[in-house]
Amino acid sequence: MKFGIVARRDKEEALKLAYRVYDFLKVHGYEVVVDKETYEHFPHFKEGDVIPLDEFDVDFIVAIGGDGTILRIEHMTKKDIPILSINMGTLGFLTEVEPSDTFFALNRLIEGEYYIDERIKVRTYIDGENRVPDALNEVAILTGIPGKIIHMKYYVDGGLADEVRADGLVVSTPTGSTGYAMSAGGPFIDPRLDVILIAPLLPLPKTSVPMVIPGSSRIDIRMLTDREIILAIDGQYYEHLPPNVEITVVKSPRKTKFIRFTREIYPKYTIRIKERH
Amino acid sequence: MKFGIVARRDKEEALKLAYRVYDFLKVHGYEVVVDKETYEHFPHFKEGDVIPLDEFDVDFIVAIGGDGTILRIEHMTKKDIPILSINMGTLGFLTEVEPSDTFFALNRLIEGEYYIDERIKVRTYIDGENRVPDALNEVAILTGIPGKIIHMKYYVDGGLADEVRADGLVVSTPTGSTGYAMSAGGPFIDPRLDVILIAPLLPLPKTSVPMVIPGSSRIDIRMLTDREIILAIDGQYYEHLPPNVEITVVKSPRKTKFIRFTREIYPKYTIRIKERH
Amino acid sequence: MKFGIVARRDKEEALKLAYRVYDFLKVHGYEVVVDKETYEHFPHFKEGDVIPLDEFDVDFIVAIGGDGTILRIEHMTKKDIPILSINMGTLGFLTEVEPSDTFFALNRLIEGEYYIDERIKVRTYIDGENRVPDALNEVAILTGIPGKIIHMKYYVDGGLADEVRADGLVVSTPTGSTGYAMSAGGPFIDPRLDVILIAPLLPLPKTSVPMVIPGSSRIDIRMLTDREIILAIDGQYYEHLPPNVEITVVKSPRKTKFIRFTREIYPKYTIRIKERH
Amino acid sequence: MKFGIVARRDKEEALKLAYRVYDFLKVHGYEVVVDKETYEHFPHFKEGDVIPLDEFDVDFIVAIGGDGTILRIEHMTKKDIPILSINMGTLGFLTEVEPSDTFFALNRLIEGEYYIDERIKVRTYIDGENRVPDALNEVAILTGIPGKIIHMKYYVDGGLADEVRADGLVVSTPTGSTGYAMSAGGPFIDPRLDVILIAPLLPLPKTSVPMVIPGSSRIDIRMLTDREIILAIDGQYYEHLPPNVEITVVKSPRKTKFIRFTREIYPKYTIRIKERH
Repeated sequence: MKFGIVARRDKEEALKLAYRVYDFLKVHGYEVVVDKETYEHFPHFKEGDVIPLDEFDVDFIVAIGGDGTILRIEHMTKKDIPILSINMGTLGFLTEVEPSDTFFALNRLIEGEYYIDERIKVRTYIDGENRVPDALNEVAILTGIPGKIIHMKYYVDGGLADEVRADGLVVSTPTGSTGYAMSAGGPFIDPRLDVILIAPLLPLPKTSVPMVIPGSSRIDIRMLTDREIILAIDGQYYEHLPPNVEITVVKSPRKTKFIRFTREIYPKYTIRIKERH
Repeated sequence: MKFGIVARRDKEEALKLAYRVYDFLKVHGYEVVVDKETYEHFPHFKEGDVIPLDEFDVDFIVAIGGDGTILRIEHMTKKDIPILSINMGTLGFLTEVEPSDTFFALNRLIEGEYYIDERIKVRTYIDGENRVPDALNEVAILTGIPGKIIHMKYYVDGGLADEVRADGLVVSTPTGSTGYAMSAGGPFIDPRLDVILIAPLLPLPKTSVPMVIPGSSRIDIRMLTDREIILAIDGQYYEHLPPNVEITVVKSPRKTKFIRFTREIYPKYTIRIKERH
Repeated sequence: MKFGIVARRDKEEALKLAYRVYDFLKVHGYEVVVDKETYEHFPHFKEGDVIPLDEFDVDFIVAIGGDGTILRIEHMTKKDIPILSINMGTLGFLTEVEPSDTFFALNRLIEGEYYIDERIKVRTYIDGENRVPDALNEVAILTGIPGKIIHMKYYVDGGLADEVRADGLVVSTPTGSTGYAMSAGGPFIDPRLDVILIAPLLPLPKTSVPMVIPGSSRIDIRMLTDREIILAIDGQYYEHLPPNVEITVVKSPRKTKFIRFTREIYPKYTIRIKERH
Repeated sequence: MKFGIVARRDKEEALKLAYRVYDFLKVHGYEVVVDKETYEHFPHFKEGDVIPLDEFDVDFIVAIGGDGTILRIEHMTKKDIPILSINMGTLGFLTEVEPSDTFFALNRLIEGEYYIDERIKVRTYIDGENRVPDALNEVAILTGIPGKIIHMKYYVDGGLADEVRADGLVVSTPTGSTGYAMSAGGPFIDPRLDVILIAPLLPLPKTSVPMVIPGSSRIDIRMLTDREIILAIDGQYYEHLPPNVEITVVKSPRKTKFIRFTREIYPKYTIRIKERH
């Protein structure tokens, strides 16, 4: 078994724990690599074990941080490597293990007593080309000028689904349903489902409702306003685009894989929705 | 091929068209039976062809009316008979064919140029027993005293999904997502999906959100208030229940089958949402 | 100064505190009357001091209970008597004083160190006649058959404000804006304002929005469905009405008067909205 | 009587009608000035009559255009000059007269058969200084990075009203209640009311509700995130601001004055809300 280690770069506690995990795994004789950016913020790892995140080719990644750390891994790595996530963030819809349980969890992982929780991602094509990361949470098409609405049409499997004047449009996975899509009035979607959620942001015609469609569907979005737009992937990756761009979103062939020790969904996720308030 | 005919009872136009369909099918040599209630409102059918709806054992039902007529068929028939629905109602999310296209549609049906659109239904167990009709749209658990909220817990697959104080709770199929569930803030759900939607009605803790769960899930609802409740199936069937009742909702083994001549969903359904406004 | 005492009837703690307040005021030489229903649940008061709530003619009422106790006083008394409310309920948007501060508050009241917080109420006319209590929170016009919508038109100052298909309609005071009207999507309204809020309940055309109108406006509601309705005042008083009834709501000439020791509104009320969740 | 003329600059039809109004008023012997920008797009007016909008000192302004034209007048003029607005826009919540009624309306204005509809505006102070236009519709405080929420606290009359994580916050007049604030879930507010509406944009804690407060109240907004914000006045005036800025919004001493020929509000405004859909 080969491990990769990635930590939140702005929290010393996370970096220190990452080092302890690294040490633990080395002592137990496993091959371990460390993310270059993690190393740059905590240069105590053996330099020979350091490689860039996008070159990770390991069996498991141990992520020590919050949802942001997981999204960084997802946007950078080229393989669908199972992630064991230690929660060093505030919210933690994606993370699994509390810091105090880190080594207990590692032992269970090593002993094979775990379960892989696969999550769908969505892929975005801009004028037919995919050059942006897949989204684990959501792709947002946003007005380039805050406060000025954009006028859009969107199509599902080639048929017109809606025409809307809004601040933007969110195309979300079930994983993302607890995030930006929920602010837009979307439902909680059970993460086991192979569906995609489309939700307009602050639409003026309030008749525009969120839609839940099959994971196999294709979503085409066309702008009717001559206004620059912003594409935001998981609230992490941003790109300004011209108004006449053609955007298509489909399910990605890639998946995110989380190491879980329980298959529990209720109340695990629904309680977090409430706790946030 | 054997046909059954059911018409909206309160609209002469529908009853007359039902007779013309009956006549057309008889002339073409098909066996035809007529719903007893339809006959009672329009006693021109041959008495020997009249049988109660719950004894229908035919290959196709021709329904002339609105969504109410289809729901009546669904609640009464004992087999999953494909329905060709002629729209004589106002809204028509379920109906397919305009009256002027009736005989054109019948010919296509006879020639086998059609497609079966299968829809899931949900089944309700009260204290472990199923004695109420399956719902094509939704099961609503409502406060027995309008304006007085009920306090409930609901569980998905055995895990607590939410605890809510509300006027009620709706458990909806994708078909029902354009109905009562949408008033409660639920999304449009593509009718091809095998999912169930749960939506609280006017919850006081606004943190309670609609949930989309797998069609294979079990939903258990428990009352925490000592107040009589009302169970409403598809807005057609009503039953008053004591407060301490245990309600379970699961997908029914039965399906509703519609005769369609197109597989189009977008914009067919989404336009109707807007037209209603 | 003459005092009246009213307690929540179902909570012994409240009844006992009511007796201590009664004793305290008597000892200090004040004239005190006790609500008949309170006495019936705690028959230790001097029988000669007991009178029905609707005959109270005092300078101040001390209310020991929750919002329900205050609403009972408001619906029964014939004069706008200032209320000092001791919170023995769960929520307490209307109540002011915690039980432990009861005698401190009474002393401040006696010394005149208080402020009167006047709240508007709304009055309902049924076919031109007012025979129901004024509402401190809201008047709700509800479908008589839960789950079956009613079709209504409502007029403000004679002009058509909206036509709506919904489970009902709420006409709320600012005081009621944190209650049923908020579940219906209404805003928080500063209690100092002389305005009325109208909010449809679960409207199908989602274009129907809550409306805030002048306190001096007249609201006329007309039913378009032939379905019995229920009139609910403050969730306490209920009346079944025929479908063709004409309902008019206006601001009442009466006010509710609360004894307050602070003029604070923010965050006093807005925090309670959050705490409820 | 002295008149000023302002037209929508991008619509020839509006510019031509503006010239006909100009000609009509000159022929009838009135003093008329023309907005410089209007002239630049339609250089047929007598050059001596052309002055910049911010130097207008007339009895009435005739505005030919849509809501944008009216907002431009409101942001530029230094006096509260009554506006007769001819609708050459699409929506027209602010405009009054259809183009075909232009000269009929002018005659009524000249004869004094009109009514002044005064609307409140809100004024924004940035770090204690007012350098931005008053808002007739709304002041929006928006995240400088679309898709990245801002964390704010807002205070009403010095008391904490809410703490919220959202895409932004809208402070709206009754006039603006049918605009951006309505997308944010705000109610329709009768334009006669002297109130201010505060509505968070896509708040994550859904417990944050819109608030209606007295027109006399002061609203203070403080940022808790270290993120640039955008201030948008009426969707027309934009300013980027640093994160640590202190924003205060109060009712402006200035008013917008519209020439109306009817005092009708219902269904005039409420129908427009529905027509938009």
